[in-house]
Amino acid sequence: MFRFDFPAGMVRQSVVMTTVRKRQNVRGHARYRLSDFAGALLRNWKQLALPVANEHVIVAVSGGADSTALLLTLDELLKAERLDLQLIVAHLDHGLRGLASEEDARWVETLANELGLTFELGRAAVKERAERDNLEQAARRARYEFLAEVAKRYGARLVLTGHTLDDQAETVLLRLLRGSGAEGLGGIEAQRALVEGDEVLLARPLVGWARHVQTVEYCRERHVEFRVDEMNEDERFARVRVRRELLPLMESFNPRVVEALARTAELLRDDAIVLNAAAEELLKAASEEGKVAENESSASIIGSLSVDILVRASSSVRRRALRLWLARGRGDLRRLELVHLSGVEKLLKGVRGGRVAELPGGGFVERRRGRLRFHVK
Amino acid sequence: MFRFDFPAGMVRQSVVMTTVRKRQNVRGHARYRLSDFAGALLRNWKQLALPVANEHVIVAVSGGADSTALLLTLDELLKAERLDLQLIVAHLDHGLRGLASEEDARWVETLANELGLTFELGRAAVKERAERDNLEQAARRARYEFLAEVAKRYGARLVLTGHTLDDQAETVLLRLLRGSGAEGLGGIEAQRALVEGDEVLLARPLVGWARHVQTVEYCRERHVEFRVDEMNEDERFARVRVRRELLPLMESFNPRVVEALARTAELLRDDAIVLNAAAEELLKAASEEGKVAENESSASIIGSLSVDILVRASSSVRRRALRLWLARGRGDLRRLELVHLSGVEKLLKGVRGGRVAELPGGGFVERRRGRLRFHVK
Repeated sequence: MFRFDFPAGMVRQSVVMTTVRKRQNVRGHARYRLSDFAGALLRNWKQLALPVANEHVIVAVSGGADSTALLLTLDELLKAERLDLQLIVAHLDHGLRGLASEEDARWVETLANELGLTFELGRAAVKERAERDNLEQAARRARYEFLAEVAKRYGARLVLTGHTLDDQAETVLLRLLRGSGAEGLGGIEAQRALVEGDEVLLARPLVGWARHVQTVEYCRERHVEFRVDEMNEDERFARVRVRRELLPLMESFNPRVVEALARTAELLRDDAIVLNAAAEELLKAASEEGKVAENESSASIIGSLSVDILVRASSSVRRRALRLWLARGRGDLRRLELVHLSGVEKLLKGVRGGRVAELPGGGFVERRRGRLRFHVK
Repeated sequence: MFRFDFPAGMVRQSVVMTTVRKRQNVRGHARYRLSDFAGALLRNWKQLALPVANEHVIVAVSGGADSTALLLTLDELLKAERLDLQLIVAHLDHGLRGLASEEDARWVETLANELGLTFELGRAAVKERAERDNLEQAARRARYEFLAEVAKRYGARLVLTGHTLDDQAETVLLRLLRGSGAEGLGGIEAQRALVEGDEVLLARPLVGWARHVQTVEYCRERHVEFRVDEMNEDERFARVRVRRELLPLMESFNPRVVEALARTAELLRDDAIVLNAAAEELLKAASEEGKVAENESSASIIGSLSVDILVRASSSVRRRALRLWLARGRGDLRRLELVHLSGVEKLLKGVRGGRVAELPGGGFVERRRGRLRFHVK
């Protein structure tokens, strides 16, 4: 992928120029003709029913082409008076690349200042956190925690990231390489709760339609030379190998494979919504059936499910119901893999089934008197 | 992939040797110790609840490693008296490779004779049929028609093919390259009706567990040098490029990617079963709701659906219901693509919706008085 990296001086100058031009347009009350890219973003914005006025909105900007283009497009829409929002530019310094990390942060801060926007900088010691996790996961978690914190501070109900169709395709392939089901292959959602159960919305207004080449092109139109994320140069990351090797090979089969993968993801996300709703119903039915007769006084048993009800369900819905049940009991699904889920499913087989299925990190599920009981550690 | 091609004389000799050794085992009533591969096939056979005795079974054998291994394994199971079936070896000469095609046919016939099995040869002019279709599709269709015809002639209720886990992974990737949904990514079913609505079962007893390298290895153990399918050498076919380029690259990310793809396919097939059942219910409800008040006397209208009922359904289930409806009206889904389905879905939008959605090959769907009506050509 061809990317640009110009001296900071040039960036500053061009941003100022663009900003001034836009302001004149707005002041003159001439109807501002939106760029194609901003027009497409606005259409997607409305489809997603995102707020158009009187809100604080946090924009996560790494300084790469995608998030920079997102920020510049929002700036265009504000100056064209198509949106009336208070944007806060949020940048997390992961501290992974020393001076280069600091330069990125300063670059984003300068851009925010030039656009007349508030800037929030966070710092995280991702490397120290990464011991338990892999580096990419640790970085993502730190980023979302930072964004949640900034959103809270400003009372913002919306956080935006610059994920594109290309990110979507890479995510689908990475999940496919691991043998994921519909949820995993559903890829990146255009919107979801930033933190589960919290009301702050995380939206990706580019993910449904914008290619990376388009964000690069838009930055060029605005004469803004975005930063190159040097993390991308590091072939250790599977995601980068997917981008550099796997996707190009797949494009030799179908030049529009990125769009094809995004379509697959959308179809499977729709499927997962229906199946998860069915799983919730199953869970409710299996939980209530025969519960009255049960003695669940032990504090370590956090719930039980009727074996009869589970056995009669389809494997697709049952698997999801058991996943939900275990996730709620454990607080999260970390380290829970298909093999553990299969262990729990095996308890359902035969008249009596197995007795106990162990879960990672302690805790187990026991089959007794026609019910599955979840014992936490 | 490393394959073998030895002179026909060697094949004949080794088959005879193997056959004799097996017969002696059976005659001596010594408990025959199954090879690992045959043991695994037998376990899968029982999981699939396939018949073990008193049936004619058609085995499709191209002469390649997979179908040859399937045939040899069934031979082992017959001679070990673990199965008691009348096998018919069926081979279709696609006439695509001139002399080589004829040699394949003679080779399979010789193998069948050596094993003491009935041989059925079919010939198809695939190239002439391929004008409408692509070559691979035309070849597949000719093959299944031939197998259905042979099954009928012998009163067989079961037809077997030698598809492996590798075929499964290739199929999933080819479908992914086109942006398929759960049905497409579900890949090759371990069993299905050979012809829709017909009672002859098509089963693939290797597809759930056997790698291609294992079929090669089993043929070597049996000293049978299978044929190299030269069609495989032809890089024109996307499937071969998937096998030679895409899968090896994906294996550099995850050495067990073939198994991962097969797991994904299985999960998505389970999902599709649930969603298609829901689609059938939706179709029934949308068809019956408000039907009494309707005048559907025109012979060209083959059914109508309530817009209200469809609108309230999830897009996942609705899309499947519309697909089923169109498939039944048209007889098949050939040439029906997502774009046509989207056209029909658009009729549901807004209070009045669009008026008419055209379908390929004539016919159209019309929205009138709160119902979708399907007019055949």
